[in-house]
Amino acid sequence: MVTNYSYKYFIVHLPSDHPYVAHVEINRPDKMNAFFEAMWLEMAQVFNALSHDPSVRAIVLSGAGEKAFTAGLDVHAASQGELSSGSEDIDGARKAAHLRRHIGTFQDSITAIERCEKPVISAVHGFALGLAIDISAATDIRVCAQDTRFSVKEVDIGLAADIGTLSRLPKIVGNNGWVKEVALTAKIFGAEEAKSVGFVNSVYDNKEATVKAALELAKLIAGKSPVAVQGTKEILNWSRDHSVQDGLRYTSVWNSAALQTKDVSAALLSGIQKRKPTFEKL
Amino acid sequence: MVTNYSYKYFIVHLPSDHPYVAHVEINRPDKMNAFFEAMWLEMAQVFNALSHDPSVRAIVLSGAGEKAFTAGLDVHAASQGELSSGSEDIDGARKAAHLRRHIGTFQDSITAIERCEKPVISAVHGFALGLAIDISAATDIRVCAQDTRFSVKEVDIGLAADIGTLSRLPKIVGNNGWVKEVALTAKIFGAEEAKSVGFVNSVYDNKEATVKAALELAKLIAGKSPVAVQGTKEILNWSRDHSVQDGLRYTSVWNSAALQTKDVSAALLSGIQKRKPTFEKL
Amino acid sequence: MVTNYSYKYFIVHLPSDHPYVAHVEINRPDKMNAFFEAMWLEMAQVFNALSHDPSVRAIVLSGAGEKAFTAGLDVHAASQGELSSGSEDIDGARKAAHLRRHIGTFQDSITAIERCEKPVISAVHGFALGLAIDISAATDIRVCAQDTRFSVKEVDIGLAADIGTLSRLPKIVGNNGWVKEVALTAKIFGAEEAKSVGFVNSVYDNKEATVKAALELAKLIAGKSPVAVQGTKEILNWSRDHSVQDGLRYTSVWNSAALQTKDVSAALLSGIQKRKPTFEKL
Amino acid sequence: MVTNYSYKYFIVHLPSDHPYVAHVEINRPDKMNAFFEAMWLEMAQVFNALSHDPSVRAIVLSGAGEKAFTAGLDVHAASQGELSSGSEDIDGARKAAHLRRHIGTFQDSITAIERCEKPVISAVHGFALGLAIDISAATDIRVCAQDTRFSVKEVDIGLAADIGTLSRLPKIVGNNGWVKEVALTAKIFGAEEAKSVGFVNSVYDNKEATVKAALELAKLIAGKSPVAVQGTKEILNWSRDHSVQDGLRYTSVWNSAALQTKDVSAALLSGIQKRKPTFEKL
Amino acid sequence: MVTNYSYKYFIVHLPSDHPYVAHVEINRPDKMNAFFEAMWLEMAQVFNALSHDPSVRAIVLSGAGEKAFTAGLDVHAASQGELSSGSEDIDGARKAAHLRRHIGTFQDSITAIERCEKPVISAVHGFALGLAIDISAATDIRVCAQDTRFSVKEVDIGLAADIGTLSRLPKIVGNNGWVKEVALTAKIFGAEEAKSVGFVNSVYDNKEATVKAALELAKLIAGKSPVAVQGTKEILNWSRDHSVQDGLRYTSVWNSAALQTKDVSAALLSGIQKRKPTFEKL
Amino acid sequence: MVTNYSYKYFIVHLPSDHPYVAHVEINRPDKMNAFFEAMWLEMAQVFNALSHDPSVRAIVLSGAGEKAFTAGLDVHAASQGELSSGSEDIDGARKAAHLRRHIGTFQDSITAIERCEKPVISAVHGFALGLAIDISAATDIRVCAQDTRFSVKEVDIGLAADIGTLSRLPKIVGNNGWVKEVALTAKIFGAEEAKSVGFVNSVYDNKEATVKAALELAKLIAGKSPVAVQGTKEILNWSRDHSVQDGLRYTSVWNSAALQTKDVSAALLSGIQKRKPTFEKL
Repeated sequence: MVTNYSYKYFIVHLPSDHPYVAHVEINRPDKMNAFFEAMWLEMAQVFNALSHDPSVRAIVLSGAGEKAFTAGLDVHAASQGELSSGSEDIDGARKAAHLRRHIGTFQDSITAIERCEKPVISAVHGFALGLAIDISAATDIRVCAQDTRFSVKEVDIGLAADIGTLSRLPKIVGNNGWVKEVALTAKIFGAEEAKSVGFVNSVYDNKEATVKAALELAKLIAGKSPVAVQGTKEILNWSRDHSVQDGLRYTSVWNSAALQTKDVSAALLSGIQKRKPTFEKL
Repeated sequence: MVTNYSYKYFIVHLPSDHPYVAHVEINRPDKMNAFFEAMWLEMAQVFNALSHDPSVRAIVLSGAGEKAFTAGLDVHAASQGELSSGSEDIDGARKAAHLRRHIGTFQDSITAIERCEKPVISAVHGFALGLAIDISAATDIRVCAQDTRFSVKEVDIGLAADIGTLSRLPKIVGNNGWVKEVALTAKIFGAEEAKSVGFVNSVYDNKEATVKAALELAKLIAGKSPVAVQGTKEILNWSRDHSVQDGLRYTSVWNSAALQTKDVSAALLSGIQKRKPTFEKL
Repeated sequence: MVTNYSYKYFIVHLPSDHPYVAHVEINRPDKMNAFFEAMWLEMAQVFNALSHDPSVRAIVLSGAGEKAFTAGLDVHAASQGELSSGSEDIDGARKAAHLRRHIGTFQDSITAIERCEKPVISAVHGFALGLAIDISAATDIRVCAQDTRFSVKEVDIGLAADIGTLSRLPKIVGNNGWVKEVALTAKIFGAEEAKSVGFVNSVYDNKEATVKAALELAKLIAGKSPVAVQGTKEILNWSRDHSVQDGLRYTSVWNSAALQTKDVSAALLSGIQKRKPTFEKL
Repeated sequence: MVTNYSYKYFIVHLPSDHPYVAHVEINRPDKMNAFFEAMWLEMAQVFNALSHDPSVRAIVLSGAGEKAFTAGLDVHAASQGELSSGSEDIDGARKAAHLRRHIGTFQDSITAIERCEKPVISAVHGFALGLAIDISAATDIRVCAQDTRFSVKEVDIGLAADIGTLSRLPKIVGNNGWVKEVALTAKIFGAEEAKSVGFVNSVYDNKEATVKAALELAKLIAGKSPVAVQGTKEILNWSRDHSVQDGLRYTSVWNSAALQTKDVSAALLSGIQKRKPTFEKL
Repeated sequence: MVTNYSYKYFIVHLPSDHPYVAHVEINRPDKMNAFFEAMWLEMAQVFNALSHDPSVRAIVLSGAGEKAFTAGLDVHAASQGELSSGSEDIDGARKAAHLRRHIGTFQDSITAIERCEKPVISAVHGFALGLAIDISAATDIRVCAQDTRFSVKEVDIGLAADIGTLSRLPKIVGNNGWVKEVALTAKIFGAEEAKSVGFVNSVYDNKEATVKAALELAKLIAGKSPVAVQGTKEILNWSRDHSVQDGLRYTSVWNSAALQTKDVSAALLSGIQKRKPTFEKL
Repeated sequence: MVTNYSYKYFIVHLPSDHPYVAHVEINRPDKMNAFFEAMWLEMAQVFNALSHDPSVRAIVLSGAGEKAFTAGLDVHAASQGELSSGSEDIDGARKAAHLRRHIGTFQDSITAIERCEKPVISAVHGFALGLAIDISAATDIRVCAQDTRFSVKEVDIGLAADIGTLSRLPKIVGNNGWVKEVALTAKIFGAEEAKSVGFVNSVYDNKEATVKAALELAKLIAGKSPVAVQGTKEILNWSRDHSVQDGLRYTSVWNSAALQTKDVSAALLSGIQKRKPTFEKL
């Protein structure tokens, strides 16, 4: 499988010194990487393709330019689209049907990151507003630059965040009062606060250092057995939404196939021989 | 709708310099605001009324007097009521039926705070024992004074906390070992510990500063679109108890109606005009 | 009931100065307490017996020797057993059936700790790798020594952790990004990191101090009403896996029987008389 | 407790030859027992009162007059209330908030029947349209007269049935295709069809015979141990909404109190002595 | 929106005498409509398109030719594809990863029928084996011809049915023992048996009469308010997978938008005027 | 593995003309196969052993003697054990703890039938009271003799059925009103009624014919691929307790291993060659 990662709003790098790592950049820097519909649909395509590409084992997601990971929804575009009051001719029930479909498609695009079989690390910097939280909350690990300015911004434009933040954020950080405060006030919070509540794993001096650290972390993960890594991501996501018992059962069924891999003996042997194991494509 | 907030054990202030904010005080200071049945039934009435009052958009809950938010259950009253060994004439199954009804009613009274459509901020000070944890855990955000002395006290009077703490506390703070320790030992913990585990959002110098800060926070929230704020509370509460997928679906159905609001255009326009938006009653 | 706690791989102490406390030691120090099948089956027996022993109200679990709580799975033994590639004669579906049974039995052994009716405190030191996380995550409270070196090691031997870590760890610590990082990288983390994310409750200078502190904590808990303590453990475990409403209902049904105890009046009376209550066996 | 069952739209009979049985009649026969808001609010009061009345152990619900159990929602009243297009001044989100509250209150009134601790048998005859299905689906057992004309009527007035039918009916009858057909077409179905799909337990010649049979069935149930009967209703309702394992666990906790009843020995003794047992009030 | 329903393996009729009805035919009659991968992917496209087409309000699905609705999986094609033993070079874990993706895609294709916003009626005749059950179980209503020969065939080719039958069939028919028998034995069952257990709603003399009846039923449904019809399908599907309480809450949120439709007044007015209402497109 | 099926209260036949079939008889005919504690503990052992015995692929369960499948709990034994009022010395909470453990162990014994990896068919005749329903509801398929007299008897001895009936019966038969009637009245119902509601699959003239038919059905199932059969049982049991989506996902993970079997090619080849396939042990 040869994949040609050529997109309009995203750049996909495959850095040669980071084997099995893909680096995805949101690429609309002149608009602070603000999103409109064509962009999120394309983002889903990017992650769907990476999900099945055997030459990719870990992914970094960052925003192009110095200013922002993403400033969120392109409100100008949205106010002429789904946030417009719309035709006066159709009734409230019909408007609702269109809005449900629209929100559903938008949500699915973000969920493509969560469903991507490979771990995704978001490297966040600058403005990270609204949709930035929805997107990074769908990644597995978040790191950020010292200058990052986060905000669950939606309440400030008159709506409850509906693309994932309200469903995922409370399951990422274990401080429900903090989640409610930032979601109800839309207040800006910085890197240190994000780190102290567990929303980001680490904070770096600037964007460059952040992306570099994310790539190193991705490289480390990409060097492990892909069977083990992808199983770990999947089981952790399943466990988030199920009881411990359902988690255990699912894990045993999953591993009844996954343990039938040569990676275990390869890993054990490498451990004894103190050398780096190599694993077949998955 | 004109609501007359006149109660026996609670005072409801509507501070004129905090538009759309209600301040509820537990008002039995001579008994350290200890609760008995009539009080919790009345508390449910207070929050049910505020829930539907369009002139209220955010609520602060605090305890009257210097000594305590609440010292918990009035054990003297309880030992003659539901905690008494009761009539010897009826058998264990019949006693159990009465206890179930009693506990259910008591739980419902606390749940009225969670079900209140408007965000509730508890401003805690002094003794905050037993029921104080059940009550504040049902509010959305908790702030406290430096002198607060918290305790999940129930185990010390021979029972498992049954009015909400054991169900809600583990979903508020993401440190299950700490929850088990405080619930199994009934140890006193202070403001800093409460802050470090995420049970409270902020700590202030004293009761006065705490209530003031809570009122400011409430004012900030009350200035946002009530459609957005009430949707955010509701969806966060739903998401706590459901999978991410069920959360996303519920959100899209909710917002299919909520987006049909003039608040979005009002908020967007105010943003452009750099002025404070006003929103219609809800 | 007189129980003879004589086991091959575990030592059960009943320290006379810690009434109602049992101290279980994993006892294979020359192999860094590494586990093989006979050991985990025996561990289940230990906790099943303690669960029903009325003379035990709280339990401490630690590892014998200076080096390790446990270094995890005895990989040498496993590579000849369940991690071996196995007979070439049977097909993948049949191998899977055997693996499912094997994993299921292994999981059940660890779950015996969670199902034990009495609170279990793990006192961790030295190496605490792989299975060490699965086991300690099934205990109620974790404390550790300064020198502890934790790792969710499984990914390094080519497999997703399947004995409990991936199901329980995310429900213990409220930092999902951190859980993913340690599970995907197998990185070593120390006592301070474990404390800061809430995996352990407290850190002590060395193994001796850790075990001592765990025993003191167990003693404190063992001095409370066993009806209250065991109900609290049970309801907290139930609540972890259910919605708040299901938690509340279960609690009311549980307490409809549990409140029919003499422990409440004993506890209340002791409180008034400022003396230590005594509670009947349970 | 002396309860005075005096209502405006309901008659509560306590037939002297049916000990412990209450017979509730929907009493607006001149309007085919069609419901408006005051009626369903009162119905909730009726069942809440019966739920806690120790002199009632089983309940029959029927409709006054010859024509109908109930013809459903009083559309004339509703079209001026919640089904009216409403003020043009408020936006779609605000209308939705009012509708949610309205529907919630309406649903709660029907749910009062399900939550009533005593079994409720609906005796249905004549027209049983729309709300008649919502109501009877919330009862435990349904019997009907030969002439009954059932219909899930809501789709014919432009709405999805929202007071309980769509949530409860599929869990009562195990023929999902039939449920979809009757709900999507609003077709009339008769007593035999209702019996063949399991919606009603038995069919009788006419209203009089139906009510009589329902009263006999209620009398039979009311003669059993109320501890056993009320536990059976509760556990069956819980089990409907939970997994088998959660059902088993809940049952064991419930019965750990319920088995502490003298009713078991009373029942066993009566069995040996071949006489009718008597049970204390509950 | 003008949709061109031109497909390779499916014919989409829009019968002019059945307004708002689409009739989809599985069109590979020379192979008894047996499925291979390109077909099920196309089937998903068909239903996704119909789901959003405002000129379609109800759908009939049948099989072309006299012999079969569908004889199921084209085993010849499958045995060279996903059922082949595959490359010997890759290990069991990697094979499993490919199989999971394959099964997932296949399942999603069938689920497209369930997710289609409009009700789907399957008109089944002749052979209806294996995949025929998976497909028809994903439709809302099933009718069949007297000659239909059903079988949950998968166990006969060495596998557990994995495309939907085992998940959906037990929630369609309320006879779990029968489901287990037909799934464990792969026995052929006929129209009468299918009717008696509730798998089909009605039986007709032959294929022609069956399709005709399905079209009439679709026409009846298509004449109702699309807001009401599509809400009813959605809420019934949600309720199947949730507790009654979650069903009620979801319904109230759904209808808070759906009741803001002109269809209610249109339907009420038509009822009074005794004429057929017309509803705007949705 | 050679298993010696020698038990005290159960006879295990391995009929030579029914390859891979085990026939288990409850063997206390002089007491109408009434159960006491030692029996149900032994029953769990029987099914646990059969679950892992590769020479068994399907199981029939029947009762020895002419009179009864089982008359249920041996009330005489129980009234001196768990149903006795017990020591007066311990309080209600402590009694409850003992009862919970007792009920839990009893439930687990019945659940062993459900957890047995091989399908179990119960062949019921004569008296089938109380526990007979709990037990047969845990089997996969039920057939019975014309003379069978069923009853959910527990309410008649003052308790809610707590060993499985109330959790499983409503998920077996799709007629919730009927379940409530038989559980609330303890009425006797016969073979035809059991068949008409779907509790039994088939009715035979007498015990001999019933057991014979059950053995033939077991033989038919035992001739299929054990990979397919055991997967089908497992997935159907999982699906009963989960949403359709969770069912589909679990199925795809399960089959990702199960499809790696030679049974598929063996079955396909046998189909082509029109001969009976043989499958390796599992």
